[in-house]
Amino acid sequence: MQAHDTPAQAAAGTLSYEQAGVQYDLIDPLKISAQRAAAATAAQLAAHGFGEVAASRGESAYVVDVGPFYLASIVECLGTKTLVADEMAKLTGRSYYDRIAQDTIAMAINDLITVGATPLVVQAYWAAGGSDWFGDAQRAQALVAGWKAACETCRVAWGGGETPALAGIVEAGRVDLAASCTGLINPKERLSVGDRLAAGDAIVLLASSGIHANGLSLARKLVERLPQGYLTEVDPDRHPGLTYGEALLAPTVLYSPVTEALWQAGITPHYCANITGHGWRKLLRHPATLTYRVHTVPPVTPVLAFIQRHAQQDDREAYSTLNMGAGFALFVKAGDAQRTVEVARAQGVDAWVAGQVEAGPKRLIVEPLGLEYGADDLQLR
Amino acid sequence: MQAHDTPAQAAAGTLSYEQAGVQYDLIDPLKISAQRAAAATAAQLAAHGFGEVAASRGESAYVVDVGPFYLASIVECLGTKTLVADEMAKLTGRSYYDRIAQDTIAMAINDLITVGATPLVVQAYWAAGGSDWFGDAQRAQALVAGWKAACETCRVAWGGGETPALAGIVEAGRVDLAASCTGLINPKERLSVGDRLAAGDAIVLLASSGIHANGLSLARKLVERLPQGYLTEVDPDRHPGLTYGEALLAPTVLYSPVTEALWQAGITPHYCANITGHGWRKLLRHPATLTYRVHTVPPVTPVLAFIQRHAQQDDREAYSTLNMGAGFALFVKAGDAQRTVEVARAQGVDAWVAGQVEAGPKRLIVEPLGLEYGADDLQLR
Repeated sequence: MQAHDTPAQAAAGTLSYEQAGVQYDLIDPLKISAQRAAAATAAQLAAHGFGEVAASRGESAYVVDVGPFYLASIVECLGTKTLVADEMAKLTGRSYYDRIAQDTIAMAINDLITVGATPLVVQAYWAAGGSDWFGDAQRAQALVAGWKAACETCRVAWGGGETPALAGIVEAGRVDLAASCTGLINPKERLSVGDRLAAGDAIVLLASSGIHANGLSLARKLVERLPQGYLTEVDPDRHPGLTYGEALLAPTVLYSPVTEALWQAGITPHYCANITGHGWRKLLRHPATLTYRVHTVPPVTPVLAFIQRHAQQDDREAYSTLNMGAGFALFVKAGDAQRTVEVARAQGVDAWVAGQVEAGPKRLIVEPLGLEYGADDLQLR
Repeated sequence: MQAHDTPAQAAAGTLSYEQAGVQYDLIDPLKISAQRAAAATAAQLAAHGFGEVAASRGESAYVVDVGPFYLASIVECLGTKTLVADEMAKLTGRSYYDRIAQDTIAMAINDLITVGATPLVVQAYWAAGGSDWFGDAQRAQALVAGWKAACETCRVAWGGGETPALAGIVEAGRVDLAASCTGLINPKERLSVGDRLAAGDAIVLLASSGIHANGLSLARKLVERLPQGYLTEVDPDRHPGLTYGEALLAPTVLYSPVTEALWQAGITPHYCANITGHGWRKLLRHPATLTYRVHTVPPVTPVLAFIQRHAQQDDREAYSTLNMGAGFALFVKAGDAQRTVEVARAQGVDAWVAGQVEAGPKRLIVEPLGLEYGADDLQLR
């Protein structure tokens, strides 16, 4: 039992995110201290004749005004999804690192686009537990091929990167994957750091492909409860043969083709939220006091339904941890909502007009499920 | 004995870089394949009306022409220097993560400036072996304070970053540190990707503070040979009390104040080389066929002299692995050389007019030491 379990949770057999080993209260004091120190450095930009977009502090990407356009940048970690790929490689003999590459790039790209940026350059960060990690040619080639393909999907240049061998820091046989991404908000009116979000806006949700790359600690913990582990079928009736491991390894959807197509179609989102850790609570990300009312809930992907069932999570827990079928939220002018759905679908990403923004206390109401989350349920800043 | 030792090395007791555990021939096939795939993605920039600066492929930072200026970006890993900090913390009770923070930022900044960029934004990548890593308040505060101070020295904004807990990937109690950096080359004539380098140019070397953050695998391996380990004094006569561990942990010099001051002084380097892994062989980095003749060798810092002596390396081995007192090389117009030295010294960084570029075969001649390295001694592309 982890330090965070309440006796009630332990007894009921519910598996929560913190039981899976991530203890945010140990990380948070550092995060707060780092955020304060980081904010204080913004003044340095004045020496170069530039200034930060202060509203981007606390958003998913950092934005600087460099005159003719805004510059957005980010670094993002994949997390522990490679551990699933490594287990599945042992069980099936194939490498899943082409998919893992897409996941890693998605972590950076899908955050960068929330501020209205067009991603331009991705850098690779592949830190292995030893030089021998890179000696597995099948895996290495899969990683390279997947990385290249994801860059092409997002129309970004792969600038280069780092392939350090870090024996003693990264565990033997493992790799720590991350991506940095730089983009431009050009023209400047594409900036979406939330100043335009208002009551009356529509909420459009974009489909996820599965768990994406958040909640993997929980997903891995759950394997211990499955008699056939990663080879357990997630939905034998409708998806015969689809194993838990394969389903987990569906690569994260890359959403930048949608945001770029929206701009081409003349639609500028008022705000965006990448639905990653904290699940649907990310819909409460914007700092304003507004109510988000969801009337349409996207279908839950089989692997997420499977996780919810086996982790014995109620909807409240599941939707506050996992993306539950919705990987990205666009807040658009109500009149743009239907066309936003059509533009997304034309890019091969399913989408739904899911709800609207209303005046009212800060809360998220998911009507079809009878759920409500308040301001206290998400503290990111 | 590692696979790479020659019998002669093993017998003589010389400790080379590859004996210390980094096997480049396992990493290189992946690197080459990744570089090819990355180069192919450059075409994607055309969709945005931009294009890469092709000459920056293979340089220390990647450059894109975005119209009014060039955009430069990079991600860099610290490496294994944290393992020295962790051991020293056990021995002395203090945290060295303020210095480690500067090292990490230096890895990114000192590479980014080689192409003529002004660094603007740094993102932090701090991946720990578990949430509890962040619970050590002294260490966490040192890391934050050092990160902020280094950003201020370089006049960059700390944009944000990632603090993932990666149990199962990063070893328990350890942290994988990296930094990404984005900058502008503005005005565009500051671009230095080597097209201006020519015979007749002067080589100006900037002082290092010690080992910086390259060669740490070797430095850590060496500890096994020292009776007092990290607490061995490196130079009892001239630096009484300075232990090997303390000396190794002298933070890497941040060179961007020098390159910015040079621009203010009207000096545009024709080329720059950050002297990191491969030591002085990095002076051969430029792809052209030119001879680099060094007539003045900077003083070797005590910790590097100590490493050379105890690892029983001759000068050829030492200068091809370690910075040996010179952390950064500026190739400038001969008439700018002396003033380049003065500008660097005014920024508190010692500097020397160390030699010149000549027509001739690709080689580096270090006259005072009777050393010569040829084109075959450095293969980075």
